[in-house]
Amino acid sequence: MEIEINESKIIDQIRCLGIDMIDKANSGHPGIVLGAAPIIYTLYAHHLNFDRKHPDYFNRDRFVMSAGHGSALLYATLHMAGFGIDLNDLKNFRQIDSITPGHPEYGVTPGVDCTTGPLGQGIATAVGMAIAEANLSNRYKGLVDHYTYVLCGDGDLMEGISYEAASLAGTLGLNKLIVLYDSNDICLDGKTSDTFRDNVSMRFVAQGWNAITVDDGTNIEMISKAIETAKQSTDKPTLIEIKTIIGKYSELEGTNKVHGAPLKKEDITKIKEKMDFRDIPFAVSQKSMEEMQAMIDERCIDLNDKFLELVSSQDDKTKEELEYFMNKDKSIELKDFFYDLPDNKMESPRDASSKVLNAIVKDSPFLFGGAADLFAANKTYIKDGGDFSKNNYLGKNIFFGVREHAMGAILNGLSLHGFRPYGSTFLAFSDYLKPAMRLASMMNLSNIYVFTHDSIGVGEDGPTHQPVEQLVMLRSLPNLDVFRPADTNEVLGTYRTILKKESGPSAIALARNTLPILEETKASEVEKGGYVALDTVEKPKGIVITCGEELHAVLEAAKNLKTKGVNIRVVSMPNLERFLVQSDEYKEEVLPVEVRKIVVEASSSFSWNRLVYNSKYLITLDKFGCSGPSSDVYKKYGFDAESLEEKIDNLLK
Amino acid sequence: MEIEINESKIIDQIRCLGIDMIDKANSGHPGIVLGAAPIIYTLYAHHLNFDRKHPDYFNRDRFVMSAGHGSALLYATLHMAGFGIDLNDLKNFRQIDSITPGHPEYGVTPGVDCTTGPLGQGIATAVGMAIAEANLSNRYKGLVDHYTYVLCGDGDLMEGISYEAASLAGTLGLNKLIVLYDSNDICLDGKTSDTFRDNVSMRFVAQGWNAITVDDGTNIEMISKAIETAKQSTDKPTLIEIKTIIGKYSELEGTNKVHGAPLKKEDITKIKEKMDFRDIPFAVSQKSMEEMQAMIDERCIDLNDKFLELVSSQDDKTKEELEYFMNKDKSIELKDFFYDLPDNKMESPRDASSKVLNAIVKDSPFLFGGAADLFAANKTYIKDGGDFSKNNYLGKNIFFGVREHAMGAILNGLSLHGFRPYGSTFLAFSDYLKPAMRLASMMNLSNIYVFTHDSIGVGEDGPTHQPVEQLVMLRSLPNLDVFRPADTNEVLGTYRTILKKESGPSAIALARNTLPILEETKASEVEKGGYVALDTVEKPKGIVITCGEELHAVLEAAKNLKTKGVNIRVVSMPNLERFLVQSDEYKEEVLPVEVRKIVVEASSSFSWNRLVYNSKYLITLDKFGCSGPSSDVYKKYGFDAESLEEKIDNLLK
Repeated sequence: MEIEINESKIIDQIRCLGIDMIDKANSGHPGIVLGAAPIIYTLYAHHLNFDRKHPDYFNRDRFVMSAGHGSALLYATLHMAGFGIDLNDLKNFRQIDSITPGHPEYGVTPGVDCTTGPLGQGIATAVGMAIAEANLSNRYKGLVDHYTYVLCGDGDLMEGISYEAASLAGTLGLNKLIVLYDSNDICLDGKTSDTFRDNVSMRFVAQGWNAITVDDGTNIEMISKAIETAKQSTDKPTLIEIKTIIGKYSELEGTNKVHGAPLKKEDITKIKEKMDFRDIPFAVSQKSMEEMQAMIDERCIDLNDKFLELVSSQDDKTKEELEYFMNKDKSIELKDFFYDLPDNKMESPRDASSKVLNAIVKDSPFLFGGAADLFAANKTYIKDGGDFSKNNYLGKNIFFGVREHAMGAILNGLSLHGFRPYGSTFLAFSDYLKPAMRLASMMNLSNIYVFTHDSIGVGEDGPTHQPVEQLVMLRSLPNLDVFRPADTNEVLGTYRTILKKESGPSAIALARNTLPILEETKASEVEKGGYVALDTVEKPKGIVITCGEELHAVLEAAKNLKTKGVNIRVVSMPNLERFLVQSDEYKEEVLPVEVRKIVVEASSSFSWNRLVYNSKYLITLDKFGCSGPSSDVYKKYGFDAESLEEKIDNLLK
Repeated sequence: MEIEINESKIIDQIRCLGIDMIDKANSGHPGIVLGAAPIIYTLYAHHLNFDRKHPDYFNRDRFVMSAGHGSALLYATLHMAGFGIDLNDLKNFRQIDSITPGHPEYGVTPGVDCTTGPLGQGIATAVGMAIAEANLSNRYKGLVDHYTYVLCGDGDLMEGISYEAASLAGTLGLNKLIVLYDSNDICLDGKTSDTFRDNVSMRFVAQGWNAITVDDGTNIEMISKAIETAKQSTDKPTLIEIKTIIGKYSELEGTNKVHGAPLKKEDITKIKEKMDFRDIPFAVSQKSMEEMQAMIDERCIDLNDKFLELVSSQDDKTKEELEYFMNKDKSIELKDFFYDLPDNKMESPRDASSKVLNAIVKDSPFLFGGAADLFAANKTYIKDGGDFSKNNYLGKNIFFGVREHAMGAILNGLSLHGFRPYGSTFLAFSDYLKPAMRLASMMNLSNIYVFTHDSIGVGEDGPTHQPVEQLVMLRSLPNLDVFRPADTNEVLGTYRTILKKESGPSAIALARNTLPILEETKASEVEKGGYVALDTVEKPKGIVITCGEELHAVLEAAKNLKTKGVNIRVVSMPNLERFLVQSDEYKEEVLPVEVRKIVVEASSSFSWNRLVYNSKYLITLDKFGCSGPSSDVYKKYGFDAESLEEKIDNLLK
């Protein structure tokens, strides 16, 4: 049968569909469509294991289109491969509410495993998927066993996140990760060599990878052979650098002019002539499509059914676990556990977090994560959990290294593979992973970010390590659920709330310092976002809203003010956005409209304006911190109890 | 003379001071102090050109302590080298208002060339300094000619930004950049090999660097010889990997326990015993200090005076230019230039920006920058300015590549070297350079960020490319001046305002789409942040505050509402924070307290709460955008003129 198949015709068909889509949308990147079609074709036709009727088939090979601007190429390929994308969908490329948006979006298009577009994210996310596979294939032997493929371009490899992720992948020996590098020597601004002269293969070898070069990116056999070689690797991930010509067949081929702008009509006509295709937009050869799908079916028929059958023959525990990994619902029941309060009732929120995390992770196969070289500070190490390494893919602790950005994307990959992942660093360094958090929020993944050292209370390390504007950055990120618990009780409530969630990312900001476990805080109230922690009289003179470490100083100030006859209510608000979506009744109960409100947080005022009548009622921080012992820093900026007492008193006069 | 000098005693003196500082502060990183003292000593004693009496000496070799947690090592060395840091300063290490903060801070400590701490930033900033030097040494031959040195650790080299910057430095052949890599095989969480197995030398060679290894990091001669070899390089930057033992002499030497926690008293006593030092905190050998300074003076005496003398002998133009580079005042007079308005009075803000930037950069030796592979989209290319490359260090256009983060840090390096730098990418990707922007804000550098494609108006590229929460991220960053001009007039006003500034970073958010040049906008009002653009009657029924592309739709809505008898005022607010610091009178004039206010911005509500009575008066966007033609996307989210008209009308009812 294979002899009869006209593979180059199928590839040209993909090319034609891709450029027709871009032409109709008058927007898109034709260069990669024309240049990289043979690569993606070879992968889908000859190697990638998937079930086109069940795109969510759990043991499928993952494919990440890291060069997300090549969406037209991907959609055209998925159409030809028989996924649920019809011609009309291709015609609606880049239109509102279509399933073929400008860049691939997870959850929107069948067969799209990951949202991509911002360069470098895809390859790093794929490392997360490969970590997931390494873990699961060791845990569920004979059940999970697949490759993770990436198609990337020069741009992906210029982004720092891709180096970070590659370095970790090499260290971990993720041999089932295969990166197809569409190497065309052209970037948006011109020749790649103007700005990027890395010996890419050598660089990957230096990072513990295999590197293979395919000199002719139109040669299916060479590409296929390289992939076959990569699949045989037992200890290293593989980079396959494939030399292609961007915009192949266009009159602009080999130049940056064909990278990101639609082709001229005459050029399209000529391209189709060269390929011996009719110049009819969206014309599809039924024969080519059938040929491609026949090849795929020979390898992939009924893979999902076979897998589910295999799962159903497993013991109950395995079945239950695998179902969790396959489910969209990522909630986890937080079992009761013995929480050992310290005798002196003093504990830092990060220590409390450590205890809860240890209690739940140790027995959960679903939670999986680690730290960016800050285990000791973030306290996210799972004792006796073992270290995840090349020699122990069952280890529970991932040593991400000083690679916050890659950590962010790796969490995305773990989530996309069914885990409930967590990662940790200092809150100030949440900046480093913002681009990856944004994608997590867009995909509504269930990542948990544990950010310790959450304010100027960091002290001696100074302004570079003291977050000020990070909380509003996180709170303003759509879909991200941001918690800032004040003590052990609220930490417990935070984890309970997060674990109950079916989906969506959550961030926890935790204080570094040892603090009292308060009488006034309630774990059960955290899920509402805010609640009355202290009421000194029925009709208070004012309400002070606060959260995190600042709650302690505010309570002290409130108690002192009471002795002076100034009665205020203190509202703890560990999660502003959750509070804002409570019922009007509840909000009115907690924050009656007629009582003056003050907000205290040693962080940007931008978070809190909506709760006060006038910005003067904000006791917040719109400048950088400074280096000094924690208590001195608080005092300098007026966030110690004494200063707060005075300020609050004055504001209520 | 050299024979008599006891160099190892000087090194031990630096070690002792460093651990005493950390001990007194009970906070800091002793591991690097003990391990890397010979490296920094060798550099300062034998190679680094500087003027200890004039730390700002313009032609000094730059030194960046990228491993900023090694601040104690740096301060102790600066003390010994004779900079204006006395023993008392060392004793106040990590205390409030000291000149010896927890991490090195630019502007606080004489001899500190850059704020560091967040890993990877220092090395990338140094690449910016080396770019500055490459340009200036070609422009002012015989006047500027120096090396840029970096001391970094494993952590710096794990961060993606360092790979990005190294890749560009290699491409540009920055031969006077020398990185001293303190290679001690230990990171905070344990053995580096657990998470980082790069062959670092090979990786740098793959990126176009020389790589030298020094096997014994206590051997001054070997270190010195390696630096000497690096200085001879004519076409490549050089990495010197120096093998050291972290925490040398401590009972914990060679382990992560000595990385970031103060040493035990007994350990300090024993360390000093091993070095044959008295166990007296902060004891300093006057002899050692004199010896070190004598060595330095032999090389460096009166360098500043000699340089200024040389400058004074130059022609007026050269003198004037060099004075700008040396000055703290970074304002630039925007000369009148012919602004060629298009006939149809239609222009995209990014095109307007392009014209202004071209007009001012072409004739200014101070403005210098480029794009992260988006010249064509950001429109920041300087026509006929030449491309900055290995073969043309006088080129005005820097091709940063798809390396937004490195671009951010490189701008910092250019600023620290006296330039007024600019960099450009899409606003959505400002996320990628946030950590570097934070440092720019902290150092109050005069960087200009040109962020185009500033809203969901991006259209087809979809949510990954459509900024939503980025504007509040920027506005909440202390010291950063954020402009979002609506049209050509406001773009002009924006550049005028920015160029007039003596210091501090500025960001410009620019729409992608072609828009009318409005009658209602005024360049001269931009510096006030906000102003009345349209008043339909003296006492309006409501005020709509808006900015950027949305101003166009709001004006249309306002004019339509007027025909229906609903008279509203439209306030254009291209810079929220500038408006907030205007006089109360002006603010009251523009936004009278008794008139209802509505804000329209297709961006996070977090920016604008402070201007409205209640959040319901915000017409903002707290979710991600979608892929589709720009006008369709605006319509879907209710930011077209028709939807706005209806919403505004309803809100004022």
